[in-house]
Amino acid sequence: MKARKPVKILLTNDDGINAPGLHALCQEMKNHGEVYVVAPDSEQSAVGHAITLSDPLRVQNFYKNDDFFGYAVNGTPADCVKIAYWALEIKPDILISGINLGSNTGINIIYSGTVSAATEGMFLNIPSFAISLTTFTNPNFSVAAKFAAKLSKLILAKGLPQGTLLNVNVPAVQNENEITGVMITRQGRAMYREEFDKRTDPHHRLYYWLTGQKVKLETEPDVDDRAILNNKISITPVQFDLTNYDFLEELREWGINY
Amino acid sequence: MKARKPVKILLTNDDGINAPGLHALCQEMKNHGEVYVVAPDSEQSAVGHAITLSDPLRVQNFYKNDDFFGYAVNGTPADCVKIAYWALEIKPDILISGINLGSNTGINIIYSGTVSAATEGMFLNIPSFAISLTTFTNPNFSVAAKFAAKLSKLILAKGLPQGTLLNVNVPAVQNENEITGVMITRQGRAMYREEFDKRTDPHHRLYYWLTGQKVKLETEPDVDDRAILNNKISITPVQFDLTNYDFLEELREWGINY
Repeated sequence: MKARKPVKILLTNDDGINAPGLHALCQEMKNHGEVYVVAPDSEQSAVGHAITLSDPLRVQNFYKNDDFFGYAVNGTPADCVKIAYWALEIKPDILISGINLGSNTGINIIYSGTVSAATEGMFLNIPSFAISLTTFTNPNFSVAAKFAAKLSKLILAKGLPQGTLLNVNVPAVQNENEITGVMITRQGRAMYREEFDKRTDPHHRLYYWLTGQKVKLETEPDVDDRAILNNKISITPVQFDLTNYDFLEELREWGINY
Repeated sequence: MKARKPVKILLTNDDGINAPGLHALCQEMKNHGEVYVVAPDSEQSAVGHAITLSDPLRVQNFYKNDDFFGYAVNGTPADCVKIAYWALEIKPDILISGINLGSNTGINIIYSGTVSAATEGMFLNIPSFAISLTTFTNPNFSVAAKFAAKLSKLILAKGLPQGTLLNVNVPAVQNENEITGVMITRQGRAMYREEFDKRTDPHHRLYYWLTGQKVKLETEPDVDDRAILNNKISITPVQFDLTNYDFLEELREWGINY
């Protein structure tokens, strides 16, 4: 009998290398292959698809509780994937970004460091997915971790199209019986209304905090946020050709010249 | 005769409020309406679509040469647009982000602060475009500035579809006669090969610089980078529904459950 090579799994996130969601994912994925962790040394939420050009990147060994080891990078999630692949020469069979604390749905995915790491994986032709738990409080990562393992196997067996990653959001439930299923969804298009909290500092200078967002959710059941409200795990296939092909034709008829 | 209200124009960028490209754009656009500038107080290149959640934002008045005034924000381009609209209550008829030093084409647009500012404008239903000059050396912004004015008028007359912005790249030429026309393009899909420069610091610690990128350009003439090589101004209509609809159907047939 021929020995099968173990599956190489690269994990990263945007909550930082010390985040419980990453540790829960790592614990689970160790049952399914050879796990490598390369993650930001500090929280990188809402960094979007940033990369670090103006500062040098450093890689440090990070240990926790005797059973967790990873490489901590002083950069963004996208930096972590680039440096894992090109500098640390980790060539994984699959990349998982998460488990993020808080959902990554709708137009917010363009701000998402979690998704950006999976995007970098996709650019390197590594089958990649981002996975998020839709709560900030009392997280229970077990459903998401188990589902990540299941989805990994499916992806490794079936493959993903070039240029496409999966964006997974798992409803926050205390008991896994509450999950009502899995839904293949599209990215919601609902627009947000931002709010700023205007304050005066002790030195009498104004400053602003970006705070709440209000949004009118779409009603179709196959929209990411709507699936989650229905306690379904949402999976959106994501690609990065941003061209609006429909409008492209119309724009040609404007006859713009210089 | 009824007096027409002047067009309100919001300018921003990612090279920072002191960047010559922004000043050239401002100078030109003042001939066409009421110009407001809200831009980062420092360079924010390759920040992607980042927003600032963990630090307070401050707005400072910025003056230069008696004829330039703008609001400088200690945040990203996306922050600038949000704060202009919601906190400074500037409600423009059109938003222009640029003129960026260096091209924003192909998959690189997801790292682009210049494009992210136009995206924020689009989210606020402001007709928006990003404009970049495809050089880092000896920039001559006059062609791009003139073209920005022309395109603004067209957009104000015809409108843009909801959820769509334009991404404009202007070839770097010394003489405007060298421009061979305008082309409506699609975003290139060419993948990059990253390189890291590995060094040792004076304290014997390793560090990395993200450096070169190599790419095999697509050959179709209607790809953004290809149009620029042909000395054409490239205009790509960009939207942010990232769903891969083709693969969505196939993914439904995987029958994933929990």
